[in-house]
Amino acid sequence: MKQFIVVGCGRFGSSVARTLYQMGHDVLAIDADEDIVQHISEHVTHAVQADATDENSLRALGIRNFDVAVITIGADIQSSVMATLIVKELGIKYVVSKAQNEMHAKVLYKIGADRVVFPERDMGVKVAHNLVSSNILDFIELAPDFSIMEISALEEWYGKTLQDLNIRAKYGINVMAVKKKNNEINVSPIARDVIDEGDIMVVIGHNNDLKKLQR
Amino acid sequence: MKQFIVVGCGRFGSSVARTLYQMGHDVLAIDADEDIVQHISEHVTHAVQADATDENSLRALGIRNFDVAVITIGADIQSSVMATLIVKELGIKYVVSKAQNEMHAKVLYKIGADRVVFPERDMGVKVAHNLVSSNILDFIELAPDFSIMEISALEEWYGKTLQDLNIRAKYGINVMAVKKKNNEINVSPIARDVIDEGDIMVVIGHNNDLKKLQR
Ligand SMILES: Nc1ncnc2c1ncn2[C@@H]1O[C@H](COP(=O)(O)OP(=O)(O)OP(=O)(O)O)[C@@H](O)[C@H]1O
Ligand SMILES: Nc1ncnc2c1ncn2[C@@H]1O[C@H](COP(=O)(O)OP(=O)(O)OP(=O)(O)O)[C@@H](O)[C@H]1O
Ligand SMILES: [Ca+2]
Ligand SMILES: [Ca+2]
Ligand SMILES: [Ca+2]
Ligand SMILES: [Ca+2]
Repeated sequence: MKQFIVVGCGRFGSSVARTLYQMGHDVLAIDADEDIVQHISEHVTHAVQADATDENSLRALGIRNFDVAVITIGADIQSSVMATLIVKELGIKYVVSKAQNEMHAKVLYKIGADRVVFPERDMGVKVAHNLVSSNILDFIELAPDFSIMEISALEEWYGKTLQDLNIRAKYGINVMAVKKKNNEINVSPIARDVIDEGDIMVVIGHNNDLKKLQR
Repeated sequence: MKQFIVVGCGRFGSSVARTLYQMGHDVLAIDADEDIVQHISEHVTHAVQADATDENSLRALGIRNFDVAVITIGADIQSSVMATLIVKELGIKYVVSKAQNEMHAKVLYKIGADRVVFPERDMGVKVAHNLVSSNILDFIELAPDFSIMEISALEEWYGKTLQDLNIRAKYGINVMAVKKKNNEINVSPIARDVIDEGDIMVVIGHNNDLKKLQR
């Protein structure tokens, strides 16, 4: 069990804090806004109102004993940078900070952030892909040109076997798993397995080939 | 090629707009803030300053000819709801809206949103999982208890073959792909393939089993 501090409990910060707590970890949530502290308090181990740009407040909370700090202050770049600097100086080993843009990220890394995240940007890319291809449910980018995709089976595939479809030869794509409507998952699909309406397939391949499966 | 309107060009909205445009689609970006409009204009087909809660402004932009609208207004729930209602009434077939919380989402669906997204919350869950298990790079939830994970190979696996590791028997997990350091991807790993330092593996299995691979 690790001990986490989450600084800033907006939408992103509160989701991080709640998830960590649900996973069984110790979570101290800090926000400058009393109402927000009130709101998050039942979902984390401890919630306190404090200004994270005030070194003494943080020191008084004994934060140097924590393993990881997540700085999610958003709109105010200066505060995000200050808070990152302070928790790093107080001795937290691993600090993750949320950035607004590349410039912000650069500064965060310079002052010692161990990892910088762009939640809105990353999710924007995901949602855009989703919108263009309505059958893509999720994906993992393995390499710049190579991905795993979770897709809804195409209508023209219903009732056909994987052999009939011949996806590997036709598209250069491998089918890695098939989820049936009843949530059963076939993790080693074979040639004679039949694709039914409502099946979800996990495929892997070059992005150029995967594009051909998008509708 | 589809035609998209993106209302609100904050971090999430601008990422959606830029990605859609990069994918070759027509994107009209709308924001109430002139500076933000200026900033996004070179990354989309068209960018205009307008208040999306003003029906006449939107009508004047001819938005009913667009296929999809993405409403990403964040902090101000009332504006987000208004804008969603207006684009729906102007006849846009598919409307995606960003929500602050469940209550907000419920209202959005009631007034006709076709899909509601929670970018900060979803990414918060992802980052939390990532933090707890530092070797998990990404994952896809296939079913509530079944996932695909992209993980860094564990140190104790270096130099061993998949047969040596016997991951399927030992953990009940299937290895679906291995990415080597040179970005080459092996999509049908076999028993005698050797795992090296820096390898990234794609595995599929029950969450309870996958947990055993997390460090
Ligand atoms: N100096 C500070 N000390 C502690 N908390 C702060 C400080 N500055 C801002 N916060 C808190 O951080 C949280 C996130 O900030 P803000 O809402 O500006 O970011 P955001 O990126 O829009 O958030 P999100 O998108 O995650 O909802 C807010 O709840 C805010 O009260
Ligand atoms: N009525 C409106 N009409 C047009 N644009 C609007 C309106 N209200 C807000 N916006 C714009 O929507 C964008 C997103 O709003 P806001 O920054 O409040 O949300 P956010 O959730 O914090 O954004 P993000 O997290 O994506 O950065 C802003 O650029 C804002 O100018
Ligand atoms: Ca905001
Ligand atoms: Ca990845
Ligand atoms: Ca945000
Ligand atoms: Ca999913």
